[in-house]
Amino acid sequence: MEKTIRIAVLGASGYTGADLVRLAARHPNIEIVALTANTHAGKPMAAVFPHLSMLQLPDLVEWEAVDWTGVDAVFCGLPHGTTQKITASVLAANPKTRIIDMSADFRLRDPDVYAQWYGHEHYATELQAEAVYGLTEHYRDRIRTARLIACPGCYPTAVLTALLPIVAEGLVDPADIVIDAKSGVSGAGRGPKQNTLFCEAGEGLSPYAIASHRHAPEIEQEIGQAAGTKLLVNFTPHLIPMSRGELCTSYLRLMPGASVAGLRGALAARYGDEEFVQVLDEGVMPQTQNVRGSNYVQIGVFADRIPNRAIVISALDNLVKGSAGQALQNMNVAFALDETIGLRQLPLFP
Amino acid sequence: MEKTIRIAVLGASGYTGADLVRLAARHPNIEIVALTANTHAGKPMAAVFPHLSMLQLPDLVEWEAVDWTGVDAVFCGLPHGTTQKITASVLAANPKTRIIDMSADFRLRDPDVYAQWYGHEHYATELQAEAVYGLTEHYRDRIRTARLIACPGCYPTAVLTALLPIVAEGLVDPADIVIDAKSGVSGAGRGPKQNTLFCEAGEGLSPYAIASHRHAPEIEQEIGQAAGTKLLVNFTPHLIPMSRGELCTSYLRLMPGASVAGLRGALAARYGDEEFVQVLDEGVMPQTQNVRGSNYVQIGVFADRIPNRAIVISALDNLVKGSAGQALQNMNVAFALDETIGLRQLPLFP
Amino acid sequence: MEKTIRIAVLGASGYTGADLVRLAARHPNIEIVALTANTHAGKPMAAVFPHLSMLQLPDLVEWEAVDWTGVDAVFCGLPHGTTQKITASVLAANPKTRIIDMSADFRLRDPDVYAQWYGHEHYATELQAEAVYGLTEHYRDRIRTARLIACPGCYPTAVLTALLPIVAEGLVDPADIVIDAKSGVSGAGRGPKQNTLFCEAGEGLSPYAIASHRHAPEIEQEIGQAAGTKLLVNFTPHLIPMSRGELCTSYLRLMPGASVAGLRGALAARYGDEEFVQVLDEGVMPQTQNVRGSNYVQIGVFADRIPNRAIVISALDNLVKGSAGQALQNMNVAFALDETIGLRQLPLFP
Amino acid sequence: MEKTIRIAVLGASGYTGADLVRLAARHPNIEIVALTANTHAGKPMAAVFPHLSMLQLPDLVEWEAVDWTGVDAVFCGLPHGTTQKITASVLAANPKTRIIDMSADFRLRDPDVYAQWYGHEHYATELQAEAVYGLTEHYRDRIRTARLIACPGCYPTAVLTALLPIVAEGLVDPADIVIDAKSGVSGAGRGPKQNTLFCEAGEGLSPYAIASHRHAPEIEQEIGQAAGTKLLVNFTPHLIPMSRGELCTSYLRLMPGASVAGLRGALAARYGDEEFVQVLDEGVMPQTQNVRGSNYVQIGVFADRIPNRAIVISALDNLVKGSAGQALQNMNVAFALDETIGLRQLPLFP
Repeated sequence: MEKTIRIAVLGASGYTGADLVRLAARHPNIEIVALTANTHAGKPMAAVFPHLSMLQLPDLVEWEAVDWTGVDAVFCGLPHGTTQKITASVLAANPKTRIIDMSADFRLRDPDVYAQWYGHEHYATELQAEAVYGLTEHYRDRIRTARLIACPGCYPTAVLTALLPIVAEGLVDPADIVIDAKSGVSGAGRGPKQNTLFCEAGEGLSPYAIASHRHAPEIEQEIGQAAGTKLLVNFTPHLIPMSRGELCTSYLRLMPGASVAGLRGALAARYGDEEFVQVLDEGVMPQTQNVRGSNYVQIGVFADRIPNRAIVISALDNLVKGSAGQALQNMNVAFALDETIGLRQLPLFP
Repeated sequence: MEKTIRIAVLGASGYTGADLVRLAARHPNIEIVALTANTHAGKPMAAVFPHLSMLQLPDLVEWEAVDWTGVDAVFCGLPHGTTQKITASVLAANPKTRIIDMSADFRLRDPDVYAQWYGHEHYATELQAEAVYGLTEHYRDRIRTARLIACPGCYPTAVLTALLPIVAEGLVDPADIVIDAKSGVSGAGRGPKQNTLFCEAGEGLSPYAIASHRHAPEIEQEIGQAAGTKLLVNFTPHLIPMSRGELCTSYLRLMPGASVAGLRGALAARYGDEEFVQVLDEGVMPQTQNVRGSNYVQIGVFADRIPNRAIVISALDNLVKGSAGQALQNMNVAFALDETIGLRQLPLFP
Repeated sequence: MEKTIRIAVLGASGYTGADLVRLAARHPNIEIVALTANTHAGKPMAAVFPHLSMLQLPDLVEWEAVDWTGVDAVFCGLPHGTTQKITASVLAANPKTRIIDMSADFRLRDPDVYAQWYGHEHYATELQAEAVYGLTEHYRDRIRTARLIACPGCYPTAVLTALLPIVAEGLVDPADIVIDAKSGVSGAGRGPKQNTLFCEAGEGLSPYAIASHRHAPEIEQEIGQAAGTKLLVNFTPHLIPMSRGELCTSYLRLMPGASVAGLRGALAARYGDEEFVQVLDEGVMPQTQNVRGSNYVQIGVFADRIPNRAIVISALDNLVKGSAGQALQNMNVAFALDETIGLRQLPLFP
Repeated sequence: MEKTIRIAVLGASGYTGADLVRLAARHPNIEIVALTANTHAGKPMAAVFPHLSMLQLPDLVEWEAVDWTGVDAVFCGLPHGTTQKITASVLAANPKTRIIDMSADFRLRDPDVYAQWYGHEHYATELQAEAVYGLTEHYRDRIRTARLIACPGCYPTAVLTALLPIVAEGLVDPADIVIDAKSGVSGAGRGPKQNTLFCEAGEGLSPYAIASHRHAPEIEQEIGQAAGTKLLVNFTPHLIPMSRGELCTSYLRLMPGASVAGLRGALAARYGDEEFVQVLDEGVMPQTQNVRGSNYVQIGVFADRIPNRAIVISALDNLVKGSAGQALQNMNVAFALDETIGLRQLPLFP
């Protein structure tokens, strides 16, 4: 007999929430029992996202209106800062529910780093202490039993999947990492802003948040842990005129004895059994087109012209593997399901 | 016990073929046993379509190399003109196989009309005589037993789904139909051509093939049959700077006694039980974004400013409901499977 | 000695205002003396439009702060409804200034029609009575001496340029005009709205404002005047995923004795001496790419499959010939300059 | 009295050639006397580039058919490899003509480096020896009298404009330069190729030619000369879904005593008198949108999170400042005209 997991999605009116619903609605073990969006409460989901109008979904409600008893898992796609208090409240109402947070609220383990980057004290430091970082392929064991899973940001998922194994094995210098990151516009969310209008972001290319993007400390936390030292990375994001997709080009210095082929081999070995991580053969280019709409991430390793340097490139769909897809993957792990259930849709190309 | 249908895909190196593979690979009853692409024979599919590299697929071969015994269904995504002879050859080798043709080769029932539009005599008129037009919602009964299914063109699927019921019921004047059609660039195929380069088709809008597009006689054949008379339609296509999606705006004259609400009601009644046809409520706009990557088609009905005229708009994904998706839907019908199997992926938005 | 025209631009923070500044800044007879944008007052123009940062421009101010004495021409790019009162105020302060209005405020000559479409009484009916409709090629003589020029909407410019001559000559039935209109996203302005976000408008196609777009009565006013009768037209706009460009496909019924070649000939004769109107040879397609960034409009005439019907297609850049460029062209006329000065930049392709 | 320069454009059927014609046609001192395109010989330019149909231009001819006497300047936009022999032939026919080459044929001064990267011996080493590298702001004095001007590649123009001054002043380590380069699709030319189709390049992002792009040795030649040493750079290009525009993000290590503010100051001082180079204030982002269609280049300097590192970003239009615009600028220099003539069109935004 199949088990059914009753889920609620908080913040269902954003792109991340909608993509979670898109995937969850076709997951054979999921029943969607509540969708919240405080500014759209009372509307049917189809009024907010007409591409989901063929589904039978509960109407949007305010999060305060949800009956948490009987909810097995809660996906949070809320703006950062709000999830901390809501999570505490949900867990108080139903201590058995599992929280799978897609926001940034529980990703940074050091409360001081959180406060520095988000401009306020963390509102739920005890929950932060128990949160497990939801980079599935690296935290799987802890995710199985976690009550609160803090899914990584989209950029950190791309970067860390590519770099953690080779940093951990001491193949590259963790103090000399330059990450040139490129993202489609959906990463900026659905709220109307001038810089994400079609006429502003289209047919153009802009760097943004140089040396100040909130995904930098998250990358530094995990790379630093793998390297066994505190460190800083260069992280320079650029806005690309496409809706979905993210590609991070990491420029690395090889440690003595390491080689480009060695990097590729280490990654291939590390991810050989992973469904969703593709380490590409020599000469094959990662491309966001190849993972669009899917939970796959591609990694390519290339020689630099400068001796003893390497280039590692990773590509994913920021809304799927970079957010909703990985969240669902974590739910599968947390509920002891086959990890690929509901996530085997192939990339949509062209 | 589940039945397994062994399929071959002819012309797997085109966009239509690739989308068929994308869908078929996740269809629980399908085993892909052969993929052909004569110009790419010998290559793995992943070399031609890296977005499918996670699949275990047979390598591309020449169509002459396929062993047709044991192939239950053949999907043809070949350029028009070539399918006629190949189909005859395949059926000679295995008379029990079912041919599901996505090309234009068997759509026009009148050999003279075919010759006029395609510039040569039809090479397989006997097969043409038995071919069933694969507009699933309208030819379902005949598809169940058809040996050769001629799937409609992308534009005819959009137009006929919207217009056939209201023409058949005599609600609109079949002699006064103006169809302004708009398509994404993938409809032009993957062969490199100057006018479909990014720099040529991007940030711009062009009409093409005015009054001379080969989908016009196909529309006229079906509309004429529904109306019980020979007729001509205006059919004016435009190339839109997007990859997928098609939207047809049909301008119609109401017959005495008919009304816009009556049109909408007739369509809603006709398609009430259909999974893949959505007749939208008054005021809701069909948008290609809402069906991208999916097998759904949306239809909206609107009043014109000119009295006794109406506007009917239909939107679909030209590669899915307009081609590979409908082909798979027809396979489901032909093999007595639930018609929605393998086709329930939701639209990808954004 | 060259004459210098001192101009003010009201509403310089919108796309139309910015394009006016782009063109005016390189016009040899223009001095820009004031730029207004009430929500951005106090900022340099480069802070609002960095692509103009190489220019020496006056800072943005509130319109109330402008000294109108010595201002020879005022270009208004304000939201509709606001221009009426401001125009009255400006003309009171300086009766000699010429107003070139790019808003909709003075386009409709019938106050009742205005009130019906804009939801309030016209605030300056006396000025409305003296306003000249600024379709340059058709109202040139009156523009020379007009104090208030009401530049047409972008869609009406495309439609009327193509249709007025053939309606006036009685070649097509004015009671049976269907206009399928397609516009890039810049027509929706720079204010952040959800439906014009890159992720919403990109890779998709949506009809909007069917039978209710405010450009319809403007078209009807001018077509009706040419035809000598009141009439309604079908006008159905669609949003296209590109920033600039507009293409209108008009479906027409020929009057007895008229022919497609006759239509083309009439247009070619009418516009033979016009720099900015290109009547294309048989078989050549209008494309928005071919006029991007320029003041040119292209017109093509095509036969319909249905006998005695024709298709006339016109393409322009909505921000240039559809707005700022035509406004500047009108200024050239009003000040007795060569009409092409400042407007000879060639289209930007690709 | 104004001087008239009679020019020929070789390779006028490519994007670079067309953009040269677009600009030259409005240059008050230029008369276009010949346009060549061997595969399109005999056609009017308007048949190949309809956006230029309003111009009176000579028809396309084969380059062998041009009468070089009386041609004052020849712009070459031919594929690399072909220009060397043609240039020799042209100069033999008319030793007084000035050659302004937009191809790669004369950029690399070392014949061995040329042979290594282009796969054949240089066919005109004597001409190579006299060629002047056409980075206007850095080679202006030599361009004045040069008979053969080798205009830089688009990427080198962006990179070298930003880096040459700070390398020459010893502010950054020339041995540790990482250049993440991003280009629109027009850089790949107008020849139909699968990877530049709308459906392949759209809505996606791909690195290409990693560590093997032919612009790398050109950058190394100039940076090495400024640094006084041979060196290698990292140069990693990416294809971006836009037609025009290029942005290079250079990651640099500061030399002892240097600072981010010092870099910005050095660039601002170096380019203070240059019309076409904009060194942006602290915090202002270079964006390709801001220079689209224009000859301007924007440079921004940013602090890295890693101490003693800096990020320098430069943006330009690859077809204008990166090719045809700079070529025209060089002609202005070579013929002692005001350097900005014909190049003052403002960027087209949106």
